[in-house]
Amino acid sequence: MPVHRTVLGEDALPRQWYNVLVDMPTKPAPALNPATKQPVGPDDLSAIFPMALIAQEVSTDRWIDIPEEVLEALALWRPTPLHRAWRLEKALGTPAHIYYKNESVSPPGSHKPNTAVPQAYFNKKEGIKRLSTETGAGQWGSALSFACNYFDLECMVYMVRVSFQQKPYRKSMMNTWGGTVIASPSDQTNVGRAILAEHPDSPGSLGMAISEAVEDAATRDDTNYALGSVLNHVLLHQTVIGLEMKKQFDIVGEKPDVLVGCTGGGSNFAGFFLPYIPDKLESPDMRIVCVEPASCPTLTRGKFAYDFGDTGKMTPIMQMHTLGHDFVPPGIHAGGLRYHGMAPIVSALVDDGTIEAVAGHQLEVFAASVMFARTEGIIPAPETAHAIWAACEEAKKCIETGEEKVIAFNFSGHGLVDMAAYDAYLGGKLHNYAYPQEAIEESWKNLPVI
Amino acid sequence: MPVHRTVLGEDALPRQWYNVLVDMPTKPAPALNPATKQPVGPDDLSAIFPMALIAQEVSTDRWIDIPEEVLEALALWRPTPLHRAWRLEKALGTPAHIYYKNESVSPPGSHKPNTAVPQAYFNKKEGIKRLSTETGAGQWGSALSFACNYFDLECMVYMVRVSFQQKPYRKSMMNTWGGTVIASPSDQTNVGRAILAEHPDSPGSLGMAISEAVEDAATRDDTNYALGSVLNHVLLHQTVIGLEMKKQFDIVGEKPDVLVGCTGGGSNFAGFFLPYIPDKLESPDMRIVCVEPASCPTLTRGKFAYDFGDTGKMTPIMQMHTLGHDFVPPGIHAGGLRYHGMAPIVSALVDDGTIEAVAGHQLEVFAASVMFARTEGIIPAPETAHAIWAACEEAKKCIETGEEKVIAFNFSGHGLVDMAAYDAYLGGKLHNYAYPQEAIEESWKNLPVI
Repeated sequence: MPVHRTVLGEDALPRQWYNVLVDMPTKPAPALNPATKQPVGPDDLSAIFPMALIAQEVSTDRWIDIPEEVLEALALWRPTPLHRAWRLEKALGTPAHIYYKNESVSPPGSHKPNTAVPQAYFNKKEGIKRLSTETGAGQWGSALSFACNYFDLECMVYMVRVSFQQKPYRKSMMNTWGGTVIASPSDQTNVGRAILAEHPDSPGSLGMAISEAVEDAATRDDTNYALGSVLNHVLLHQTVIGLEMKKQFDIVGEKPDVLVGCTGGGSNFAGFFLPYIPDKLESPDMRIVCVEPASCPTLTRGKFAYDFGDTGKMTPIMQMHTLGHDFVPPGIHAGGLRYHGMAPIVSALVDDGTIEAVAGHQLEVFAASVMFARTEGIIPAPETAHAIWAACEEAKKCIETGEEKVIAFNFSGHGLVDMAAYDAYLGGKLHNYAYPQEAIEESWKNLPVI
Repeated sequence: MPVHRTVLGEDALPRQWYNVLVDMPTKPAPALNPATKQPVGPDDLSAIFPMALIAQEVSTDRWIDIPEEVLEALALWRPTPLHRAWRLEKALGTPAHIYYKNESVSPPGSHKPNTAVPQAYFNKKEGIKRLSTETGAGQWGSALSFACNYFDLECMVYMVRVSFQQKPYRKSMMNTWGGTVIASPSDQTNVGRAILAEHPDSPGSLGMAISEAVEDAATRDDTNYALGSVLNHVLLHQTVIGLEMKKQFDIVGEKPDVLVGCTGGGSNFAGFFLPYIPDKLESPDMRIVCVEPASCPTLTRGKFAYDFGDTGKMTPIMQMHTLGHDFVPPGIHAGGLRYHGMAPIVSALVDDGTIEAVAGHQLEVFAASVMFARTEGIIPAPETAHAIWAACEEAKKCIETGEEKVIAFNFSGHGLVDMAAYDAYLGGKLHNYAYPQEAIEESWKNLPVI
């Protein structure tokens, strides 16, 4: 019988995170203070982040030790399996070898706790009692509630009101891990009250929820803020994915030719491919492919420019691919991919051509996802479905060329708490959407002038 | 760092199922034809089951080979990990060593596909095109949809109407794997139409759904029926759980003193403990504890007698612990434990004192489950929560005695598709319930006279 899953014992857990900043051909530009437009320093960030994470954000060390307490928490579900997708290959009729790293086995069901755990740990160590954050689709809020509970911190989640109403299971998960969840905009913050005064029925947005969570953290001494993607330290924590996978490919005896992953803020895919950047620089034929929704085409159609991370203009200004901080994508079901910007590290690697990006339409993406569920069994999160679609497209090219390419993608999460999306797809209620170029360019008019 | 999870490679997958019938001190009595009340033979069953499963039902071989095709399907998620519950032990302050076998890692999230896969396989091999079944909480219907899709069979699921309406995510899961799901009672069967004629707004029941699924299979040549628990062959297929666990305990270097699991129809726990029956017979101090809800106390307060498997009196009559085939338990959230009867194998082992049974109340059970989620991370299915509660009770006894007992329980499934139960518990909407003895004895009046 051929091997389906390459599993590792806990002795194979990576003991250090990999900091790609040291090896990047073109470094990301520094983030700027939104008021002064000068490079941000530790003092700009210390009101909402612990010093350990601020240090990781700008570290020049290639390897950063993972604390023992963090390893113990990760060992609840890591190392995660590397699967060979035998049945998907057969269904496609491809000579390609398709692999996926299964990050859905964590308690909250996605890669998000890989960074939620160390973020909670470093905050706890510096005396913080409480973390605030925002959540849209709910994966990040679930993961942070799980991690805060682990290290005995309070967790305050501002959940976009429309998701709060449509995804009661997500709220129940966060409550079960002890998190407090309120619908955003809320009456708990100045920014929330101001929005409600003007729009009492506001459905909320990720931009509003970020502003509420940041205000909460900035105005309380016992509270810091936690972000689930985009920042360098978040991507750093996710590198356990790719580091484990390297060991697994050594056991399998293959080397990936094409790495594929979905990108919203960029963290799951970065965690998967960053450890392969040195390999890519040595082997130019290797390809690294970011996949995003055609309805929120940050990397494929966005501008590489300085922009705010949030709608409320409270975050540092970062150089990244952006659709404009007030760009509002349609309500596609892959809520985790609806961000207007992108991690500066991922953006810089796309901009200098080290890695590439493609965009997929919703109907094709869900078709690939259902095919995956019917061959490999696991029902993918709608975000993960984008990676599957692109991996299948790559595998189909091998049918024509006859190449036995090794294609690996990151299975970032399962879809069991997002089944309404499948219901809509199978019921014929979804459609494709791509923004006209004018609409995208219109939102660039509000980019900050540097 | 201490080891959290003992994982096995696919080379450790059991190649044979263990048939406990050979080793049981007291064999279960034969099942009887509901009309003639004579022992059922293959001819009674061949209208709805394939011959291979009928043969397994009465096999006298201790070991039965697992076909290669079944092993390949199981390898999508098996072997499953054996976890040491370090943080739960610490939170309880117990000297006991607590372990759990994690069956929640299957694509549908429970132990159910362990038997759904071989049932689909053996039906396919005998030329069947379509399987019918019933589902209440939805775990079984999901697993059978998954397995039918794997072997390219159609799957027809009669889902209790009230669950169909309250659990749309379960329906979406079955649809995603290609299953057809309709609310029961339906207009697709004689029995369904008869019920609807009298009660157009009937909320349905598991008994009605079984009758519809059996009628569907009995009246169509291309269709067989599949049952998710109770029968000998179902328990047989589940023994992969305990067989893997024995290998894992060998690696860990410990031996379990107490085995704990929840029992609805009995299959998940039987799969976990049956391979330990020879050990139990050699070591009388070893204990095997079935856990059921106090509101459906089949083993702890039911009668050991011949009874029908369904409300509609269409199934064979079996000797088992029963609350009476028309007993209606309250709508507790552990839907998988609301069955009036029990697997004859499990019943016989309880009756002759080889194994024991306890009952837990809903509020204590959910409290233990939330404690588990907040220590070990994974959110348990409400059914699984019963096993956790009883394992914690056993571990608490060790605080008093100071014994370092090894307690192992079966983590039969996760709760991510049942979060409404947690919402109700955390919102203070659940209460305890235990039937007065008269109510239970009342329903014994309708037991068949043999």
